[in-house]
Amino acid sequence: MEILYLSIFFWASFFLPAHSQNVSTPNIIIMLMDDMGWGDLGVFGQPSKETPYLDLMASQGMLFPNFYTANPLCSPSRAALLTGRLNGMFSYTPQEIVGGISKDELLLPQMLKKRGYVSKIVGKWHLGHREQFLPLQHGFDQWFGAPNCHFGPYNDSNRPNIPLYNNSQMIGRYYEDFKINQKTGESNLTQIYLQEGLDFIFHQTLARQPFFLYWAPDATHAPVYASKRFLGKSQRGRYGDAVMELDYSVGQILAWLGTLGIDKNTFVFFTSDNGAALTSGPLQSGSNGPFLCGKETTFEGGMREPAIAWWPGRIPAGMVSSQVGTVMDLFTTSLALAGLVAPDDRVIDGLDLSPALFNNSLTDRAVFYYRGNQMMAVRVGIYKAHYWTWSNSWEEFNQGINFCPGQEVAGVTTHTQQEHTMQPLIFHLGRDPGEKYPISVLSKEYQDVLGRISAVVEQHVKTLVPGQPQLNMCDLAVMNWSPPGCEKLGKCLKPPPSQPYKCDWPH
Amino acid sequence: MEILYLSIFFWASFFLPAHSQNVSTPNIIIMLMDDMGWGDLGVFGQPSKETPYLDLMASQGMLFPNFYTANPLCSPSRAALLTGRLNGMFSYTPQEIVGGISKDELLLPQMLKKRGYVSKIVGKWHLGHREQFLPLQHGFDQWFGAPNCHFGPYNDSNRPNIPLYNNSQMIGRYYEDFKINQKTGESNLTQIYLQEGLDFIFHQTLARQPFFLYWAPDATHAPVYASKRFLGKSQRGRYGDAVMELDYSVGQILAWLGTLGIDKNTFVFFTSDNGAALTSGPLQSGSNGPFLCGKETTFEGGMREPAIAWWPGRIPAGMVSSQVGTVMDLFTTSLALAGLVAPDDRVIDGLDLSPALFNNSLTDRAVFYYRGNQMMAVRVGIYKAHYWTWSNSWEEFNQGINFCPGQEVAGVTTHTQQEHTMQPLIFHLGRDPGEKYPISVLSKEYQDVLGRISAVVEQHVKTLVPGQPQLNMCDLAVMNWSPPGCEKLGKCLKPPPSQPYKCDWPH
Repeated sequence: MEILYLSIFFWASFFLPAHSQNVSTPNIIIMLMDDMGWGDLGVFGQPSKETPYLDLMASQGMLFPNFYTANPLCSPSRAALLTGRLNGMFSYTPQEIVGGISKDELLLPQMLKKRGYVSKIVGKWHLGHREQFLPLQHGFDQWFGAPNCHFGPYNDSNRPNIPLYNNSQMIGRYYEDFKINQKTGESNLTQIYLQEGLDFIFHQTLARQPFFLYWAPDATHAPVYASKRFLGKSQRGRYGDAVMELDYSVGQILAWLGTLGIDKNTFVFFTSDNGAALTSGPLQSGSNGPFLCGKETTFEGGMREPAIAWWPGRIPAGMVSSQVGTVMDLFTTSLALAGLVAPDDRVIDGLDLSPALFNNSLTDRAVFYYRGNQMMAVRVGIYKAHYWTWSNSWEEFNQGINFCPGQEVAGVTTHTQQEHTMQPLIFHLGRDPGEKYPISVLSKEYQDVLGRISAVVEQHVKTLVPGQPQLNMCDLAVMNWSPPGCEKLGKCLKPPPSQPYKCDWPH
Repeated sequence: MEILYLSIFFWASFFLPAHSQNVSTPNIIIMLMDDMGWGDLGVFGQPSKETPYLDLMASQGMLFPNFYTANPLCSPSRAALLTGRLNGMFSYTPQEIVGGISKDELLLPQMLKKRGYVSKIVGKWHLGHREQFLPLQHGFDQWFGAPNCHFGPYNDSNRPNIPLYNNSQMIGRYYEDFKINQKTGESNLTQIYLQEGLDFIFHQTLARQPFFLYWAPDATHAPVYASKRFLGKSQRGRYGDAVMELDYSVGQILAWLGTLGIDKNTFVFFTSDNGAALTSGPLQSGSNGPFLCGKETTFEGGMREPAIAWWPGRIPAGMVSSQVGTVMDLFTTSLALAGLVAPDDRVIDGLDLSPALFNNSLTDRAVFYYRGNQMMAVRVGIYKAHYWTWSNSWEEFNQGINFCPGQEVAGVTTHTQQEHTMQPLIFHLGRDPGEKYPISVLSKEYQDVLGRISAVVEQHVKTLVPGQPQLNMCDLAVMNWSPPGCEKLGKCLKPPPSQPYKCDWPH
């Protein structure tokens, strides 16, 4: 592989102009990690410092310590990123799910097409795996990856293994054709996803067409995996090994942009879909740094994400922005960079981050923390108010499922869905990023802040158009039995009779 | 002040040779913060990123994420740093304390004198405030600072305010002559300590004598303070403001070394005396990042310290060392840099870090976590075994004193002094830096690790020479009533009759 790319490098350096693309349509790369925590990056305080390339990316770009996902779960967070909206994706998408991303939603690649962009998703989709929900039905021109999580292995009789797609055709299944060694954690999937990304960038550069690459590897989602070269290399075990491989891959992609001479015309943003999944235990989950709890919760550990913007020559190097951002801003910002305006026929929750990126200026904005369709909390300025608190149920907790291991804050990490709407719990996220010290309701500070936050919430509720729940129904018949292309591989499985039922969402 | 230094700059640039000192006796600067936590530095994951100068220092030097103090309390930690030994300083030194650093201990400045070093301490001493215990009696040539914490204000009738010394003479008292505004937190003390450091460096450079500067400001110890220019500037409130001012001061000192042309001949090490004092609450204490609990405890949050080594041209830039280090290593390393050997008539617990600093190589070493004279825990490799656990007593805890706010780990953060010597709690600090998941005693990993750790502990206990407790006795008559020099200022106070009693150490 290295020899191949060396020769391409020489070739490219002769034939490609240094800046082969139009600056009015910069390339866009969104790197979205899976269950990676804020605290997994060296630059965000991971003690074992596994991310030299990401730390370098930060030193060459802009770090966003106040960046959020839209939901502490993968599917709704990914839907929000691609649509710029809090929408009807209220839960996650297991194989039994009947629904998926609505055809009424406008996705980033659909929008970018108007300006001639070619879009590819590499890695996990997670917005519905039935045919009408797949990436190529929603604006992507290319896809290499899987529709669901890489759980397994299954025996293919009562549950099929997850298929991998190349564009609209299945090319194999996890554990069968794309190995993940359960015992050792070895898998070369990240290397494959890296290669797919590099190839796409290369071909688009040759074709001189602006591109959008949505690079969404899933090595840090349990069961975590890494390729042989990285296994055993970190101080954290398998999880840290996966981080090292992803970090290396990010470094390779950024270096490739330089090699191809398109780095000054490519906007790259690195982030994650939700907080580290602490309940998976120390070998299978990451770190949320100083923040409370993890994935599934609306505490900071569930929704604060690592975030780095990179665009040499356009975004000043080594900056730390205090701008509060969300994954939905990547939709709006990408449109702005491509010279497009956001659709005006719907509420768009994303903010154009250009002022922060290019002028280091700050825009006031609120962050809403949703769990399902319930607004649990809101951040305004440096303050966060919890209207509802919940970690998980006593029933789950007593079975050993713990979203906040070692972090109990009395009255905050509650095991019932506790309402505080009459008197929200308010925290100062500057001096108390860990949400450990609720501000006294008797203080003037509390009263002042509550007034400001209430106004924001009132406005939000007033303008809210409730999304149609897309993920209510489940059916074993809709699992990945016979994905398109299965017949060529002899991998079609027979589905059971359809028996739709209302999905059971425990959290 | 800036004009003065500008003129000195021009003057210096004409008259000082670029490298005016002997490389065989490099200057040594140890910057020791007070109660600053690992997580307070941007480079260690502080979300509000208040430390651009320290982050720059790290990028120009070597970061030590696995660096420890010798004790989670100020006095014993500082005694260990200056002597290279775990010694008889078992608790802290309030004004009532009769004892202090033993005359039998050999301190770093005493050793360095053999090679012609001139030594100054700027800031807090905290190794006993009676005359025989003060810095100039223990090898320092100069001192500007205070013997105790800046608690107060007191009314001088039943308790005197803490004096500040210039060398061997008191020059005033906190709150009276050196203001700390209780309400606003304003004080210019860090600026004074900065100036004292810069002046000393300048004069030593002119005199062409190698120097040891022990720069120990205390702005991050409650009650935290900052000067007007920094107040209100951070996202964290007063504590963060203090961090910003200290960060700025570190930047000024490093820049000054460059200006004077001695940066390539000066070894600088930045660290802190113990973990953030979480019990002081969010406005008055810092962050221990992902680590458990804080000051006073032997969990990682009490003893893991921020640490950066800097020496342009000698220590490679931008490195992260996995070497496990302790403040006692600063004694041994400084001696090695000055071409001295450590005293051979006593046990020295410090390690020479030169191999890590100059060759990025790793040396195996254990870390012992003491509380008083009780070995609570030990780290060997990436594993840590707790032989005893204790946060604080139920009695204190029920009064609202909490060393682990928001961090309860069942069976770990115990409120009784719980013995585990027969079956220590073992944690993997790589995948579990927060000490949340004790390794199952039934696992092979546990048995393997316990065998290795037991051997280390056995050896430690066998070679241990128990220190003489120095801090058992208290007496109101020994408080800072009439420090030397008080008569010139008319600030001598009348002590009460001597009534020695056994000190009460609640923790």
